[in-house]
Amino acid sequence: MAPRVRVVGTGLIGTSLGIALTRAGWDVRLHDPSPTAVALARDLGAGSIAGPHDEAPDLVVVAAPPDVTGAVVAEELARWPEAAVTDVASVKVAVLDDVRARQGDLSRYAGSHPMAGRERSGAVAARGDLFDGRAWVVVPHESSSREAVSLVRELAVAAGGTVSTMSPAEHDAAVAVVSHVPQLASSLVASRLRDLTEPAVALAGQGIRDVTRVAASDAQLWTQILAGNAPAVREVLRHLREELSEVIGALDTLADGDGVGAREVLARVVASGNAGHARIPGKHGAAPTAYATVVVLVPDRPGELARLLHDVGDAGVNLEDLHLEHGLGQPFGLAEVSVLPAVAERLGEELQARGWRLHG
Amino acid sequence: MAPRVRVVGTGLIGTSLGIALTRAGWDVRLHDPSPTAVALARDLGAGSIAGPHDEAPDLVVVAAPPDVTGAVVAEELARWPEAAVTDVASVKVAVLDDVRARQGDLSRYAGSHPMAGRERSGAVAARGDLFDGRAWVVVPHESSSREAVSLVRELAVAAGGTVSTMSPAEHDAAVAVVSHVPQLASSLVASRLRDLTEPAVALAGQGIRDVTRVAASDAQLWTQILAGNAPAVREVLRHLREELSEVIGALDTLADGDGVGAREVLARVVASGNAGHARIPGKHGAAPTAYATVVVLVPDRPGELARLLHDVGDAGVNLEDLHLEHGLGQPFGLAEVSVLPAVAERLGEELQARGWRLHG
Repeated sequence: MAPRVRVVGTGLIGTSLGIALTRAGWDVRLHDPSPTAVALARDLGAGSIAGPHDEAPDLVVVAAPPDVTGAVVAEELARWPEAAVTDVASVKVAVLDDVRARQGDLSRYAGSHPMAGRERSGAVAARGDLFDGRAWVVVPHESSSREAVSLVRELAVAAGGTVSTMSPAEHDAAVAVVSHVPQLASSLVASRLRDLTEPAVALAGQGIRDVTRVAASDAQLWTQILAGNAPAVREVLRHLREELSEVIGALDTLADGDGVGAREVLARVVASGNAGHARIPGKHGAAPTAYATVVVLVPDRPGELARLLHDVGDAGVNLEDLHLEHGLGQPFGLAEVSVLPAVAERLGEELQARGWRLHG
Repeated sequence: MAPRVRVVGTGLIGTSLGIALTRAGWDVRLHDPSPTAVALARDLGAGSIAGPHDEAPDLVVVAAPPDVTGAVVAEELARWPEAAVTDVASVKVAVLDDVRARQGDLSRYAGSHPMAGRERSGAVAARGDLFDGRAWVVVPHESSSREAVSLVRELAVAAGGTVSTMSPAEHDAAVAVVSHVPQLASSLVASRLRDLTEPAVALAGQGIRDVTRVAASDAQLWTQILAGNAPAVREVLRHLREELSEVIGALDTLADGDGVGAREVLARVVASGNAGHARIPGKHGAAPTAYATVVVLVPDRPGELARLLHDVGDAGVNLEDLHLEHGLGQPFGLAEVSVLPAVAERLGEELQARGWRLHG
């Protein structure tokens, strides 16, 4: 029989999880401080509203905002003395410390972190496939019972996640590097644009667009996330500041001094970035592959991009990635088509034969 | 009659420019220290190889590596006492200072910066449409003659660029913010990935992929660019380091102290990033538009993305932008389709009616 699960907090993550688990045949009971929110989640197919005569749950999932997660986990542990409890907050050490400080029964608690959700929020944005194919980290601590961990893994699999396991410290150190510090760096770079003149901002190309895309994220949510992972984030930022100071020092000697040694520092920083970038896994979590790119000029008319991708498909070539770049003041864009290196040349020829103009 | 132009340096930019100008009916003579490089450029249609009995050019374009540009500009000014001379280096104050130090005739010099080229290099990657629709900044200084500036503008227009004009200092300050600092920030963030474990790197999502895309750039070229713009880049980096230190201070009080005031700092930094990001011009240099996005699950099979875009076109909706995101370990990706807000809901319905699954 499928587990009985209680979802506390019916925002984007809680509601999406309810929908996914209900579809998987689980018995889902929903709870939220807001009666409107919980009724909406029910109407969206996330489960039934929790009632006073419900049987005790096997598993409680706390999907509350990060800054109250620890308190709610402790409450639920006390309320259901037989249930395993997990949470979905994007930081894990702070939640565990909070539960410990509140003297919750830690053996029945194991954290988790489904890496989904993006920048949207609220139940109306919920989808049962939100977790499909996304990383879901199960985060037990040293006193988590085997049963609790096993139930949380079962939950992650039922929701469609790709499951891995880490300790709370490992998890927080990892997300500091792959998520929290990139967000801050993006915000800091974007912030420098505020004082530019219009003609200066008009020089913005694809590079800064990519670097600052996540700078559009929600300030309140990110304040909670960054505050919740303060020790791990500052550790990474300190290293980053050291390297930054080294760069500034090198630029100082170039601007004011003899410049000796400066180019070595700059080259090393860019080369270290090359090496770090090369570690990011490729498509589908496979080992990184250096794809070849074919860049095509695409007129800015409805249907042209579809025609291009149709022609790529017709050539029997599988598209590995696609990146669009818009020209400034011109009625076309550039489509950067990534394919396996072995087929790139042939693809370029076939596209030209079909009348496409290749670029740079 | 079209101007006679001499292109010195037949790498990616020089050769592409030769092709574009030849197509526009200009008489192009090519020069490069490497006989092989110049012959290749000629074979690619970039013009004729410069000979000892050529008529004097009206305009010389120096397309040499950034670190020798000033010296070559001064040489060409001395060699052709009637010609205007420009260059295409991505930094402008350092080149001007260098020409001045070499006592070149500054009245006949006006710099320029075509913002094209990306990370590819060499004549084999050259294309006559490399500059189509890209920003081309003409950068006169206070003693540039009107004739020289006018010829350089004519050049930029003939090559297909979208022309604007800035002083050398304005130009260098602008590219420091929109190009050089984003590159460095991307390298510094990517660099932090080097020490992660495999499972930690596997958590990398779309955010860090975007932030670190330019971290794959060529270290030698970027060393020259950053060194050439040292004063402007360090100015921006100092501001960035101040804000970074404020963030680290806030995280310190959260990790070790009472946390008072820390959340205000974090929220302000992310909100400043929001404000800076909002200044980046939209597609085609128009004012930024907040597009609505429709996110669609696309099976990872040849032709599926083409079918999706075909259906978008069939719905009569113009695609404004497209962003692909690949799931981890799953046989599909997410296509984020950006459209005008007024048509987003209808598009979502039409796509669902055609069997597409929407997401998030």
